[in-house]
Amino acid sequence: MTLQPATPAFLDSLRDRLPPSAFREAEERHLSEPRGRFRGTGLLLAPGSTEEVAAILRACFDARVPVVPHSGGTGLVGGQVMAEGPAPVILSLARMDRVRAVHPSESVLVAEAGVILADVHREAERAGRMFPLSLASEGSARIGGLLATNAGGTAVLRHGNARALCLGVEAVTAQGEVWHGLTRLRKDNAGYDLRDLLIGSEGTLGVITAAALRLVQPPSRVGVALLAVPSPAVALELLALAQGRYGDTVQGFELMGRMGFVFLAETGLGASPLSPVPDWTVLVELGLPEGLEPQAALERIFEEGMERGLVTDGVLAASEAQATALWELRERIPEANRKIGAVSSHDISLPLSEIPAFIPEAEAALARLGPFRVNCFGHLGDGNLHFNVFPPSGVARAEFDPVRGRVKELVHDLVHARGGSVAAEHGVGRLKVGDLERYGDPVKLSMMRAVKQALDPRGILNPGAVLRAQGNRP
Amino acid sequence: MTLQPATPAFLDSLRDRLPPSAFREAEERHLSEPRGRFRGTGLLLAPGSTEEVAAILRACFDARVPVVPHSGGTGLVGGQVMAEGPAPVILSLARMDRVRAVHPSESVLVAEAGVILADVHREAERAGRMFPLSLASEGSARIGGLLATNAGGTAVLRHGNARALCLGVEAVTAQGEVWHGLTRLRKDNAGYDLRDLLIGSEGTLGVITAAALRLVQPPSRVGVALLAVPSPAVALELLALAQGRYGDTVQGFELMGRMGFVFLAETGLGASPLSPVPDWTVLVELGLPEGLEPQAALERIFEEGMERGLVTDGVLAASEAQATALWELRERIPEANRKIGAVSSHDISLPLSEIPAFIPEAEAALARLGPFRVNCFGHLGDGNLHFNVFPPSGVARAEFDPVRGRVKELVHDLVHARGGSVAAEHGVGRLKVGDLERYGDPVKLSMMRAVKQALDPRGILNPGAVLRAQGNRP
Repeated sequence: MTLQPATPAFLDSLRDRLPPSAFREAEERHLSEPRGRFRGTGLLLAPGSTEEVAAILRACFDARVPVVPHSGGTGLVGGQVMAEGPAPVILSLARMDRVRAVHPSESVLVAEAGVILADVHREAERAGRMFPLSLASEGSARIGGLLATNAGGTAVLRHGNARALCLGVEAVTAQGEVWHGLTRLRKDNAGYDLRDLLIGSEGTLGVITAAALRLVQPPSRVGVALLAVPSPAVALELLALAQGRYGDTVQGFELMGRMGFVFLAETGLGASPLSPVPDWTVLVELGLPEGLEPQAALERIFEEGMERGLVTDGVLAASEAQATALWELRERIPEANRKIGAVSSHDISLPLSEIPAFIPEAEAALARLGPFRVNCFGHLGDGNLHFNVFPPSGVARAEFDPVRGRVKELVHDLVHARGGSVAAEHGVGRLKVGDLERYGDPVKLSMMRAVKQALDPRGILNPGAVLRAQGNRP
Repeated sequence: MTLQPATPAFLDSLRDRLPPSAFREAEERHLSEPRGRFRGTGLLLAPGSTEEVAAILRACFDARVPVVPHSGGTGLVGGQVMAEGPAPVILSLARMDRVRAVHPSESVLVAEAGVILADVHREAERAGRMFPLSLASEGSARIGGLLATNAGGTAVLRHGNARALCLGVEAVTAQGEVWHGLTRLRKDNAGYDLRDLLIGSEGTLGVITAAALRLVQPPSRVGVALLAVPSPAVALELLALAQGRYGDTVQGFELMGRMGFVFLAETGLGASPLSPVPDWTVLVELGLPEGLEPQAALERIFEEGMERGLVTDGVLAASEAQATALWELRERIPEANRKIGAVSSHDISLPLSEIPAFIPEAEAALARLGPFRVNCFGHLGDGNLHFNVFPPSGVARAEFDPVRGRVKELVHDLVHARGGSVAAEHGVGRLKVGDLERYGDPVKLSMMRAVKQALDPRGILNPGAVLRAQGNRP
């Protein structure tokens, strides 16, 4: 039996089970994604409760209608838009935007899938706590999508990715049953870790409707510095120095190549506080316990770094405003990238010690292919780089459409050869299904297909994301 | 088709695929477990490599012979001994005891499943790093079993449990295929999180043969104090105070009830440094970055705790020897418990804010059932208590055999009613299969059964652990 398209008649058949508020027109943002690589189809449903999600899934399961969960729509790999196959129900979680509970004494917050990340930050702060997940799209990304993609961001070094910040989930299965797994427990070995299986499965194994999130006590003092380093290899030495002295109070360690500052200048989004613009800089953030002064600690790292030749220049934020300004440089790079327009973007991770050799190797290989500009930046402490390839100044990226596939393959082949991942923090979505088949361990892939078949036997959940849709296998 | 017993003839049929060293007699320790609740059967095979594990599993899959993976044998819930059904192959991983690689600059160590935890500690230390997993049985527990059970221990508060300390696994499937997943990446969203699914699945979904483990930089200075507190509720307030000031440098926060010290004295294993023995004490450990003095930080906590009525007495370790001595008190409690002999032991976790009400509630309910002594201790910061029930002094525990089931049910019912877990860090094994059926979410259970069926279609992997064996369902 094949999947059936969602039709107006199918939606009408749900009117006895869903309130009128669940029926809305799909908008442009439900059918497109930020990088414009995929264009989706489908009819929108916007349930307001877990029970309504369950009712929709039961109906879709019975009728074999595909379901594409839609959260903040900020994903960069096309996981939220279904471009091929029968038109799906686009299941928007945006109306489920309630913070159900805050437990300050337990450092736990329970949020529905549609709560925007910035709102979680605000609620946590009101309770004297902090939710550490932090990324550029936090004003529009929603908890459901952040968990479905196991989002990363700038605080992974200290606090882990979205998976590490989730204690429990409530989720609806492909059959429309509700798993009540909203535990607030920090230790629970009662059965298989299906929570972490659903997290990062990009809506292909179940629909997360709410989550118990782990908050932390905010550090007493935070300090930020932008330090120039001679090379990525030296940046890693500096990281070891900082962690050796200050352990996991090193909560941010972001690498930026010179091209990032060139792009910020070119797009009018920012300017390097260091002049001349260094080849490589790192943004270091310390979150220190009481009794330690951020300025003193950063100066200590700076001075010892200078002595050992690890640091060549730098600026220490003297105020919160300066710290924010330094972070804004880093966080505006994706925006600058969008304005310039990439030929191909690569969200990769490598074993830390492979990074220094990978970067020049990949740049040299690309140079043989064309006069590209490479903007390499990212979460160095996590081994996660955004290695994005752009046309030369003044040339339209469309001119490189014919080699885009080669660019991606070249970069990904080199990453794979060094034991890296070609889907580090953005997920697989639809963009990297072929990459997963090319680079993934074949035994893991067959285990994944078995799990998919077991939990979504009719293949209705986000077909074509992560794994090729059934019947479409090559 | 039902499972077939492992027979000498079946083992003989493997002699062309396995070296003579893989054939050994099962010893007593392979057929028993620490608490003496289960007695296993089976024939031993001790492969020396991943390929040998795969060959054994292929043969067992073909012949439908059950396989019980055996690691350090320290598990407390019978996951490592198969007491019912056809005799299994006992698959000892003990000979796979090689540390394959250490990457100090990445803070990664790659160990085979049979490496003993204390040996991982030593190798990490030699590289200037630390492997934070720490528990009483670290001299005999092995990495494979620690991951299979997602072991907890005393460092979870800061570093997470075994799952959080594993970056990648190599594993053999039920069909005898090898998943090469030994990634050293800190971020990898390339497909479903099968690593975390295998971790904690107690050998029922696959056999972990090696793991890439996450090391950390050791803290510059460590300080330990034993503080008397009026109640568990106040202990939680003290934890919030300590974390508010020193964040996640609070790396140990262990609760001990008076009975723990009574048992240490009764068994000659230790004596309280505080007199009179307080009703409740907490062992606090700080791992501080450079620039902070542990003594000063602990004194600060102590003094502010005294002022606010959170602390009534205390001793601060003035040397490493004193710190070790304080930790030994905590770590000898399980040994004292074994010597006294529990009627029923409970490895439970609760939402932190439920703990203060749970303890007196459970004690009062037990008192109505008999003159029990309760030793309540554990990892308070994780919400994980060992709530163990003993006979009165001078009475044999056998006298309470008739009410043991009632005792367990009473404690577990109260835990469940407060949103807790009855399998916090020791796992489900065979001991708690019924509990999982009683308390587990039915939708999660059916998802678990579907996953088990998908990854172990013939049901040969550790049958009867975690989930009731096929055909044995009630």
